[in-house]
This record gives sequence, C-alpha cells and structure tokens, in this order.
Amino acid sequence: MQAWKDYQQQHKDRFLNELLDLLRIPSVSARSEHKNDMISCAEAVKQRLLEAGADKVDIYPTPGHPVVYGEKFLDASKPTVLVYGHYDVQPADPLELWNSGPFEPVIKDGKIYARGACDDKGQFYMHIKAFETMTQTNSLPVNIKFLIEGEEEIGSRNLQDFVEAHKELLKADVILISDTAMLSLENPSIDVGVRGLTYIEVEVTGPNRDLHSGVYGGAVANPITILAKMIASMHDENNHITIPGFYDDVLEVPAAERAELAKAPYDEAEYKQDLGVNALWGEKGFTTNERTGIRPTLEVNGIWGGYTGEGAKTVLPSKAFAKISCRLVPNQMSEKMTKVVIDHLLSIAPEYVQVKATPHHGGDPYMTPVNSDEYRAASKAIETTFGKTPIPVRGGGSIPITALFESILQCKTVFLGFGLDSDNLHSPNEKYDVANFYKGIETIPYFHQYYAEMKK
Amino acid sequence: MQAWKDYQQQHKDRFLNELLDLLRIPSVSARSEHKNDMISCAEAVKQRLLEAGADKVDIYPTPGHPVVYGEKFLDASKPTVLVYGHYDVQPADPLELWNSGPFEPVIKDGKIYARGACDDKGQFYMHIKAFETMTQTNSLPVNIKFLIEGEEEIGSRNLQDFVEAHKELLKADVILISDTAMLSLENPSIDVGVRGLTYIEVEVTGPNRDLHSGVYGGAVANPITILAKMIASMHDENNHITIPGFYDDVLEVPAAERAELAKAPYDEAEYKQDLGVNALWGEKGFTTNERTGIRPTLEVNGIWGGYTGEGAKTVLPSKAFAKISCRLVPNQMSEKMTKVVIDHLLSIAPEYVQVKATPHHGGDPYMTPVNSDEYRAASKAIETTFGKTPIPVRGGGSIPITALFESILQCKTVFLGFGLDSDNLHSPNEKYDVANFYKGIETIPYFHQYYAEMKK
Repeated sequence: MQAWKDYQQQHKDRFLNELLDLLRIPSVSARSEHKNDMISCAEAVKQRLLEAGADKVDIYPTPGHPVVYGEKFLDASKPTVLVYGHYDVQPADPLELWNSGPFEPVIKDGKIYARGACDDKGQFYMHIKAFETMTQTNSLPVNIKFLIEGEEEIGSRNLQDFVEAHKELLKADVILISDTAMLSLENPSIDVGVRGLTYIEVEVTGPNRDLHSGVYGGAVANPITILAKMIASMHDENNHITIPGFYDDVLEVPAAERAELAKAPYDEAEYKQDLGVNALWGEKGFTTNERTGIRPTLEVNGIWGGYTGEGAKTVLPSKAFAKISCRLVPNQMSEKMTKVVIDHLLSIAPEYVQVKATPHHGGDPYMTPVNSDEYRAASKAIETTFGKTPIPVRGGGSIPITALFESILQCKTVFLGFGLDSDNLHSPNEKYDVANFYKGIETIPYFHQYYAEMKK
Repeated sequence: MQAWKDYQQQHKDRFLNELLDLLRIPSVSARSEHKNDMISCAEAVKQRLLEAGADKVDIYPTPGHPVVYGEKFLDASKPTVLVYGHYDVQPADPLELWNSGPFEPVIKDGKIYARGACDDKGQFYMHIKAFETMTQTNSLPVNIKFLIEGEEEIGSRNLQDFVEAHKELLKADVILISDTAMLSLENPSIDVGVRGLTYIEVEVTGPNRDLHSGVYGGAVANPITILAKMIASMHDENNHITIPGFYDDVLEVPAAERAELAKAPYDEAEYKQDLGVNALWGEKGFTTNERTGIRPTLEVNGIWGGYTGEGAKTVLPSKAFAKISCRLVPNQMSEKMTKVVIDHLLSIAPEYVQVKATPHHGGDPYMTPVNSDEYRAASKAIETTFGKTPIPVRGGGSIPITALFESILQCKTVFLGFGLDSDNLHSPNEKYDVANFYKGIETIPYFHQYYAEMKK
C-alpha cells in the first residue's frame, strides 16, 4: 500500500533512532543489579506504544520484572491479533569480546550492533512501528494487542500466572511473534516450529572443603573430574544422547518432510567458514539442518570449578558446577524431560560425590500448522514484500511461551521472524541488519491486512 | 637447653604477635594487584631478620617478586645451614568460604587462622625466632643463611636465575626447609620426599564466537563437552592415568619400603569423616598413603567456560579452559613429563576444535637420604623435643626448588615441617596450631646443634 510506504519512508530515520534509544537501556533480566533498568525499559515501551496509537497501555508488576500490555480496539467484528515480544535481553558478557559497548549501539556496514538489537528489541519494535504506520494512515484492519514481557531470557517465569490471570484481556484470534530468524533476505523463510527446552544446573560436591592437590590428590575424588566424566558419558561415539528414555517421545519426522526441509539452501563450506571450524559435529544419521531443527540436543552452557584465575593454584576443589540444557522436539514435554535428565544425572553420580541437580526454566516445543490462515497470511505478506514464497523451516531455538499460549488462550502462534542466524544472538557483537528492520516494518502491516481478509 | 627454653618462654607472646603482623600483609604472588604488598612483606622479613641478629640482610629485586637474603657468619670452621622459606601466599579465594578475613588473623581454639598461617609464613618465621633464641643466648652453633623468596606459590619463576647468579653467596652444607607437614604432635614424622610437579593450562576453542545453543547446538562441537571428554579419558576405570608413557620413568617402590610406609598411623573412617566423603577414590592397587606419597597423580585444579553467572543463558561457548597438574615421583622429570602430557592433550584433540596447552611452573621430585647427617640431625632434634623418633614419610606436595638446589648448589635438603595435613593449605580457613608454631621454635635450635656436632 502506497500510503504505508510513504509514511515509512518519511519516518525511517526516526524509527531507527527510537530503536537505538531502546537499545541503550541495559535491560538484563538475569542480573538483579539491572532491576531499575528493567523498569525504565518497560516505561519506555509503554510510551512508544502510546505514541504509536494505543488506546491504553498498562505496566503490570509481577513477582519478577513487569509486563507491558497495550491495545487498540476497533470493533468486535474484526479479528484480534496479539503481538508478543520481550524487552529483556541476555547478559552481555564476556564484555571483552565486544567491539563496541553492548549498550552503546552503533551502526556499521548497515548493521545495528548492540545487545538486544535482534533479540528481541529490534524485532518487537518493528511491530510498534508497523502499528504506528497503520494508525497514522487510518488503515489498521484488526484489533491489536501487545504483550511485551521482561522475563523471556530467564524462562518467562511469571508469564504463565499473568496469562492465566488475564485470559479475557489477552483473548485473541492469533498470536504473532517476531523472535526468530529467516534464512536470508534473498531466501525468506518462516519458522514453523520451535524446540522446547529444559535447563538444569548441576552441582557436584566432593570433599567438604578445597584441598591441597598435592596432599590429597590421588586419594579423594576430584569433583571436576567426576563432572567431566558425567558430561562425557552423555553423548556416545555417534553423538547420540545416552540418557535412558531421552528419545522415547520424539516424533520421528517422515521422510517426505525431511526431503522438504532439505531444500533449504545450505552451504557446508560457508557454514564452517563462518564459524571458523574445520569440522562439524553432530548426531550421526542427520544433516546439519536436521540436527538443529528436528532433533533434540544436549549442550553444556557453562562449567566452572576450582581455581580459574591468573596463574597456577594447586587446589583440589570441593565443588564443580555445570549448566546443561536440552532442546526438545515435538512430543517431548519439558517437565517430563527435565525429570528424565535429572534422574539420569543422579543415577550416574558415583559414591565419591554428592550431586545436586536443579531445574531452571523450560518450555514445550511448538509447531505452527502450515495449512492454517495465520501461516498463509504470514506467507502471503512475505511474498508481497520479498517477491518470493517463504520456505517453511524448523527453528532450533525455543520460545517456551508459545506452548503455554496455546494451552491457556487456545490460540495458534505464527513466527514472523526477520533475524539472521548470524546475528550473534546471546553472543558478543549481537547485531541486526538495518535492512531487515525496515523490511519487517514493511511486511507486518500486510500480515494484518491478509489475516483480516481471511477472517472476514 | 635451659637457656633456650627460658628465652622462648619469656618472649612467646611477642613471637606470636610478630607472626600475626606478618600474616596481615596480603602477599599474594599470583595477583598483580598485590605487587606492593609483596614489597612490604619482603621489607618486613628483612627487618625481622636484622632484629633477630643477622649481620646483613638484603632485598634482591628479580623480574618478579624480590628475594630476601640474610646471614650471620661466625667462622669458616663451622658448618653452614641455609634456611629456605617463602613469604608469598596462595590467593585467598573463594573468600565467601572463610570464617574470618584471610588477612585478619584470629586465634581460635589454639589455632591461628589466616592465609599463610602455615604455608609458609608461620613455618619460616619459626626459623627466625629459633635464630633469635640462639643469638640472644650466645649459642648459635653454625653459620646461618636465610633465603626467603616471594614466588614459591607461582613456581619460583625467578629463583633458578637468582641461585645460579649467587652460588657463592648461597654456599652451604645443608638446606633446611619447614614447608611440609607432620602426621601429628603425637606421631611426629619427617618428609623424606616431595613430589615433582607439572602444571598445564588447556584452552579448547570450538566456534570462533559464542553461539546461541538453540540455533547451533547439535551441529557444532561444544568445547566444554570436548574438554570434558578429554579430561574424562585421562583416568581409566581403575583410576590409572591413561597418558601413554606417563608411568614409564616411575621408580617402583620396593615392597620393604611400602611395608615401612604402611606403619604410619592411618584411620580411614576418620580420614573420610574429616573430608566429608562417603568413599575414597584413587588408583587401584595402592593405599591412600601410597596414592598421595609414592604414586604420580593427575588433577584438574580448575575448569571454566560458557556462562557461569546467575540464572540461565543458552550459549554454546567458543572456548573452554582447564588447569591440570600432575604430581611426579622419583625419576619422573618435570620437563619431560610436561611434554608427555601436552603431547597427549594435543593428540587427543578431535578435529572439531583447536587445543592449546601451555605449561605453568613445574619442578622435579626430591628425596632426602635417611642415612645422611642432615636427616639424622633432624630426627634427633625431633626426638629431643617430642620424646619420640619421627616416622619417615613421603609427602604428597611439591617443593620444586629442592631439586634445583641440589643441582646448582650441590647440597642436600632436609624437610623439617611442623604443619598438619588438616591445616587447609591453599584452601579457605588455612590455620596453624599455636602449639606447632612453638614446638617448631623449640626444636629447630637442636637441629643446628646436632648438625654442628656431627660435622665437627
């Protein structure tokens, strides 16, 4: 629509500057020292929603970080779209690997560098600007609701309670989320599934105090060695996960769907070069895209124990720790899998040590039906602005809240992501391409238009 | 000698208070922020040596931390004893596990709690007070030299150059070191051997940046998992070390000597209870005392990688690190074994990752001949003040400088240690029993007396 295009063209610099302002707020949900930044960020989101044309916006406190809710209601005959996003970001460390400050956004070679540039500030902000475009051109075709939370990066701890307590408020026909990636601007794609997650912290205790490794080494189990043996034992020589029952609930993907997924462009040499590795690693019998899309995985996200400072210290530590997470695929339910993994960790703990395993957040896997109106509206919107039908792909990440939305709100989710796998999510130098940001703002109004038309 | 006893009784409170003052200086050699504390500590040691009766004391700068050298020369007909000690201490972390400040010494239940209380400030300070006792009672029977260095805890990096450059200055008939433990005041013992050491830092690099564990997990090798597998592979199911060639140079200890060592009192239930473990761990076929005394070991002293902060972060890290050290037994030379271990680490690195292994400090094992004058003088001194012949035992720790002294100064070392294994060396709440401190001061002059008599 020409009016949209004109409006966006006219305001594009402001759109970008507003995003940069948002990126300057260090809204790290995992760190308690950022509590006030979280509140400032929620306030900023509220202001931007009001300026963009929301009828009302409220900040709802939770036992953790606040939820921002805003809406514009036209009339009951129109369908209602609930846009979900999150204003919290991952911790920025290791800081020394950033080329510029994680909360001092810079634009270089057409890319915005900042923590949260893509995940998810840059992506949910496209929705606010798309919304502004439609309200300012008097062309909003749907009732629209915004649910922008502050705890996605720490497992949406309080969102379930919030959603259950506000079912009526959040009632919608479809949920729209931009928190995933596409293959590229040249090869647009839509994630039709996200993996589930279970995240466990393991504490291995050997002796009751740190010991001198000369005086006691060789006679007392070293918790680091034991933890290493436990971790090592969880993948076999084919990189299958060895935990009993781990694959029991996995829905095998039919050969036809695997063949379809194999059509996504993939260049192994380029993939390896981008990552700087000589060889890829993964479960035998599956391709890279399958390993990250349709197969469950187990990764150690962090490990620590003993002396980790400068120089040498000859200590045999009392404790060693690891953070371990699994990505889950359809039919593997998070709660059950958390128990499967924890039970296994406890069962393989040798008598020399005490093992404690504590679950962090988790979430169930989710699939969008490709034959649904919401998927078709998204596909058609991308076709309109990209000139190509998007490829349906399986994303490797997790958006635990989607399974929850379905069960509480009885509502399907569609993932309209404009990020790229190379955006360094959760890593130093996170970025978001300015072109993708604008392309998202351009595409989103069409989703609303097509969806409204389909639901007429 | 009654004069010694009287003098020590009269000054015992001052002796203790002087030690507490020394313990207040945070002379952590491993941390560059303590550079000035190291200088203050060297100055304090110099002052105490002068006050105790040294003819001259000098502080020698090195490329690292300074060496304190002091002496009192009587005449060339008397034998010369070189007392070696170190004024540097291990880092105090983890700080949160200390019951009182590591550099705010407190005395509780007859024990001095502070970093360095036993290792080695409390022990070398006994020599200064024993020296004072002899000079003040005009009964010093030997020429005495003090070499108190500041880099023992970081591998005595610059001491070899110093010793080589000052061979004449350091010339002695015997080297006396109190930096080891005895079984207990009731079961006095003398370490007849210390193990050697090799200490290696390993860096495993997977992808060139931290990755999102959902987007890339399962398709790219996780350096933590790989490092865990490498560590896990280095002990077999009998806890033998699997590194090819690792045991090649080990001098097997004859059955007769093993039988002799087995006489040292050892209560397994008490040992386990003290450490808070349900089961001991170690190389099959050897007892606890053998595992820590006559067998080489491999311990992971530290490990780190990925996200180690509060909460959850779904990262697949670029790098993982470990600090690994081996204790070496007679005939295993440190330089060779360092190469053996590093070569092995590189050889087992899979193609998915890059492995870098860097040696920290090391040292060769050392044995004191039990039929030597120096051992006999030490044994007799302990018999005099404890009323019991000390048991010769093999210590698990390492004093790398002893092998160096032997090769450069052609001089044997005797270990006259008064610590206890339970002194929490290198750990939180390091302590030294006040009784052991005084017992050391009481015993040391007899060593000098007996040694002078034997050398007449």
